[in-house]
Amino acid sequence: MGTSKRGKASLLFEDPPLILSAASVVGKKEGEGPLGKYFDRIEMDSMLGKRTWEEAESELQTRTARLAIEKSGLDKEEIRYYFGGDLLAQLIATSFGSMDLEFPMFGLYGACSTMGEGLQLGSMTVAGDFADRVLVTASSHFASAEKQFRFPLEYGNQRPLSATWTVTGCGAVVLGKKGKGGGGSPLARVAGITTGKIVDMDFKDSMNMGAAMAPAACDVIYHHLLDFERKPEDYDKIITGDLGKVGKEILIKLLREKGIDIAEVHTDCGIEIFDCEEQGTQSGGSGCGCSAVTLSAHFLKQVEKGALKRILFVPTGALLSTVSFNEGQSVPGIAHAIVIEHA
Amino acid sequence: MGTSKRGKASLLFEDPPLILSAASVVGKKEGEGPLGKYFDRIEMDSMLGKRTWEEAESELQTRTARLAIEKSGLDKEEIRYYFGGDLLAQLIATSFGSMDLEFPMFGLYGACSTMGEGLQLGSMTVAGDFADRVLVTASSHFASAEKQFRFPLEYGNQRPLSATWTVTGCGAVVLGKKGKGGGGSPLARVAGITTGKIVDMDFKDSMNMGAAMAPAACDVIYHHLLDFERKPEDYDKIITGDLGKVGKEILIKLLREKGIDIAEVHTDCGIEIFDCEEQGTQSGGSGCGCSAVTLSAHFLKQVEKGALKRILFVPTGALLSTVSFNEGQSVPGIAHAIVIEHA
Repeated sequence: MGTSKRGKASLLFEDPPLILSAASVVGKKEGEGPLGKYFDRIEMDSMLGKRTWEEAESELQTRTARLAIEKSGLDKEEIRYYFGGDLLAQLIATSFGSMDLEFPMFGLYGACSTMGEGLQLGSMTVAGDFADRVLVTASSHFASAEKQFRFPLEYGNQRPLSATWTVTGCGAVVLGKKGKGGGGSPLARVAGITTGKIVDMDFKDSMNMGAAMAPAACDVIYHHLLDFERKPEDYDKIITGDLGKVGKEILIKLLREKGIDIAEVHTDCGIEIFDCEEQGTQSGGSGCGCSAVTLSAHFLKQVEKGALKRILFVPTGALLSTVSFNEGQSVPGIAHAIVIEHA
Repeated sequence: MGTSKRGKASLLFEDPPLILSAASVVGKKEGEGPLGKYFDRIEMDSMLGKRTWEEAESELQTRTARLAIEKSGLDKEEIRYYFGGDLLAQLIATSFGSMDLEFPMFGLYGACSTMGEGLQLGSMTVAGDFADRVLVTASSHFASAEKQFRFPLEYGNQRPLSATWTVTGCGAVVLGKKGKGGGGSPLARVAGITTGKIVDMDFKDSMNMGAAMAPAACDVIYHHLLDFERKPEDYDKIITGDLGKVGKEILIKLLREKGIDIAEVHTDCGIEIFDCEEQGTQSGGSGCGCSAVTLSAHFLKQVEKGALKRILFVPTGALLSTVSFNEGQSVPGIAHAIVIEHA
């Protein structure tokens, strides 16, 4: 059927789904960071004109989804399915944000790996000929995430060096089949995927998500390279989601223990998106939006123009819940790997 | 590629994925209901030997998943992907419950429609030849849901007649390709699907989920019949998830307004699972587990033996969050339709 299964969790698409368009909308702080000039839109009002942080995040979803569709040159009616998610309980940012679009919808939760989960399921849906085009989004908002997971903003808690800063932003892509775009040439193609499993190292520090996610990133990268019989140097970049500086070091160390050295080609969206020292974001950026906007605004453009020929995009998620955490449970991680190539 | 797209959101599988096995594990109250004798296992201890309600629900997931795999006659290693979800913030019941199984995982959130979302994505994955076999689960637990969404159990709040009772239970199925079972004959086949969109009628009563979900069920059933050019009588049963008595009446009325009468063939898992008067469950059962266990334990057996030749399974979800609700937002609904036939 045009796809070959590799190993236990990998797929190589014979007729790779295309990334037809990508959009990114971020907050003020993200706009002031090193990638500021690449984002499609910087919202200077962190409330986006809404009454609550959650509604603001929903609005981020709406605006980004509409922009991605607009940039694809397609009509809303030409998009068949929608895959979306965020960090909030019961996915309220996504549900309320996508409602007006009236797409048949699959709500996803993979913590900060959600953009990866969406790209994988969206790619399968297109490659399997179940849809000519689908929309994938993932968002986070600093204030709605802090409110849900950590402390009230007014409390002004101190942040350890291992802490990350939740990105206010939403990334969206339109995936489609060859010849089914809106006229323009595609940004890139999704050549293959490796789906991650939950990895629990019994890690219990909610202020150090990088360390919680690094073992999951290690696991999926290791299996990906094994399944595809590739080496790190077969990629121009291996890009994790939001490990930050602390998680990056752990990942590189864990993979070296398995005889794999990705140091030369590795980067992390959480490190790219902020100037951590200047912007006081400690270990780096995080949240579903972090990898989603960095991919959409920055890396996809480099792939489009051929500056990067092939990347491995590995969004990482920490399965943190205040309920499970306060009940003494660990913070397991998950990560998904997507091979994105110049089309 | 062996599948035909129908309308905006429907797929008809030319080579339908098979339901190779199904398992259901429920709590004591569900075991005392009219379907008691059909469940695989009734857990008399609502804590399942664990310390917290959330861990108890995770344990429900683990036990049901293992049982479904065992009943399929397959090895755990022969299952490729796992699709699962529950009602809890950040899907902790599913994440912690599935961790030991070490499957490449897609976490789903569709409120109480999650079993439908999982069956749809799982079926596409099998029909698209991305996996020979996948596992799909959905769970809920009365106590973890009440704690999260409503009142502390100790408070003993009164329940209006429109309220439903969250089912303690987990349902799981193994989907697979023809000739890829563990030896036994399949229970049924998934002939087609219609994916629902979010429908918001600006409904704001968190104690009347049936009314919140009925418009979404109406929308997906209406479009399904249109896309497949079918009438209600083409189905032996049209089975909604957890509308309860209140939602059922609204659904039938809404569809009649569109010239469709499903009264003769309609039933609802929430009504089937409890003897509402005897068991004090008011309008009926609800929760992701409600439709998941009723399908697994009851309806699939009837399809297997041919007592039902073709059913439309329509799990329904209310996108309720305490955060959005307390901020004055409505409770939108979503529902997904799955055509299940005698194999």
